[in-house]
Amino acid sequence: MIAVNLTFLPSISPPPYEQYAKVIIEEGIKVAETAGGPAAIPIIKMYKEAGIFVIHKCTSIRHAQAAEKVGVDMLSIDGFECAGHPGEDDVGGLLLLALAARKLKTPYIASGGIGDGRGLAAAIALGAAGVNCGTVFMATKESYVHDNIKQAMVQADERSTTHIFRTLRNTARVFKNKVAEEVVAKERRPGGVEFPEIAPLVSGARGKKVYDNGDPDAGVWSASGVMGLIDDVPSCEELLKRMERDAEKVLLESAAKVKRESKL
Amino acid sequence: MIAVNLTFLPSISPPPYEQYAKVIIEEGIKVAETAGGPAAIPIIKMYKEAGIFVIHKCTSIRHAQAAEKVGVDMLSIDGFECAGHPGEDDVGGLLLLALAARKLKTPYIASGGIGDGRGLAAAIALGAAGVNCGTVFMATKESYVHDNIKQAMVQADERSTTHIFRTLRNTARVFKNKVAEEVVAKERRPGGVEFPEIAPLVSGARGKKVYDNGDPDAGVWSASGVMGLIDDVPSCEELLKRMERDAEKVLLESAAKVKRESKL
Repeated sequence: MIAVNLTFLPSISPPPYEQYAKVIIEEGIKVAETAGGPAAIPIIKMYKEAGIFVIHKCTSIRHAQAAEKVGVDMLSIDGFECAGHPGEDDVGGLLLLALAARKLKTPYIASGGIGDGRGLAAAIALGAAGVNCGTVFMATKESYVHDNIKQAMVQADERSTTHIFRTLRNTARVFKNKVAEEVVAKERRPGGVEFPEIAPLVSGARGKKVYDNGDPDAGVWSASGVMGLIDDVPSCEELLKRMERDAEKVLLESAAKVKRESKL
Repeated sequence: MIAVNLTFLPSISPPPYEQYAKVIIEEGIKVAETAGGPAAIPIIKMYKEAGIFVIHKCTSIRHAQAAEKVGVDMLSIDGFECAGHPGEDDVGGLLLLALAARKLKTPYIASGGIGDGRGLAAAIALGAAGVNCGTVFMATKESYVHDNIKQAMVQADERSTTHIFRTLRNTARVFKNKVAEEVVAKERRPGGVEFPEIAPLVSGARGKKVYDNGDPDAGVWSASGVMGLIDDVPSCEELLKRMERDAEKVLLESAAKVKRESKL
């Protein structure tokens, strides 16, 4: 099944979101992901009127509750650990998902910081119906990114990311390279930085060169600390089978630790 | 059983750690927690020579591995969500504990962001032998903190904390009040701040007034976003029974979701 994601965030060249959404509806797409701020709301309404199953990705309980009111079918709850945009609240997944279990009525999947069977098992324990992984799939055989980048991810660890755009309140977690460090240095300068000054550093065209040409320092590129869990470059099938098998083992072993007191 | 914690971190009036440790040994204490930087190492060695069971609390895998080499008996792995000192690596518990399961040989307990049965169940799934909770115990009947503060914790949510001392590389997560916000504002000022200027704001004597007199704005005080999970002020017995019961339920229900394929 084909599903489509539209994310509504500040962009150097904002796409015509409403026109994109119309095409998605006309093409008969059955599942759509939305993400980002209040700009997502009218699109969610368009999708719902067209009978599309909508998964809304958000980084906070209050945003999830706002999306519930518009009638999304599923939420993707994105903790602080995630690659890309973690929002500005900085609540780690372990806590955010425990809160989601209490505060949300809509089914949710867990995003951010999950890269193996233990993470999947923990997400299930935290009430999630499943997980939403990005970083681990970048380092698979089928991924289109250059092999140099896959190897850079194998070498990297959980400390190999940084936050850019923090001072612009549009925080993004990216691979910690020279370009990202230059952006952060400019942001931390007395008086901070205006976006136009760093725009040439963070352009999508430069980021694309990373994936195409395999130079990890060509631009900024999204990745999470899940790189610390990446030791090889499996096929997607191997990765998923491993995650599933390990999660099942962990869940069964964890349940076996429960010692019920005698009811006699 | 009485256990004692000694934490080695920058302090306005550093205590005589070695003398404290000698008293702990002389008094026949059997379990000791250590935390903080390399200054903990000689104390861990002293404890081990005296036959004490040592639990070392740390915020990163590499620090945990360093403590393993000195022979600690157990690790307490403290994720980004924690109250007090989360370190400077900012790795959320969901990821940090999955890494711990792979990288550590020593048994570990999970700290930070855990305030209910789901958090406990997730920690078990992430390979922890148990959990180390602080914030939830502050809002219990037995806790010595003023009832106003317990009620402030019930009212607070997961966004009610902030990080002070970030620019001094001695980050601490505290309740987000006027004093904490003043410290953060001074740290963010062009040119930053030197510790002596903020020392009067963050003194332990002022923090103690918060707990004693019940004014949440009297000084800075440690608390984590786990406040979002605090809805009442139970006794410690009620809190622990609830956590245990809920964690058991979650672990059994999660394991029941595992559908083993037929082996026929």
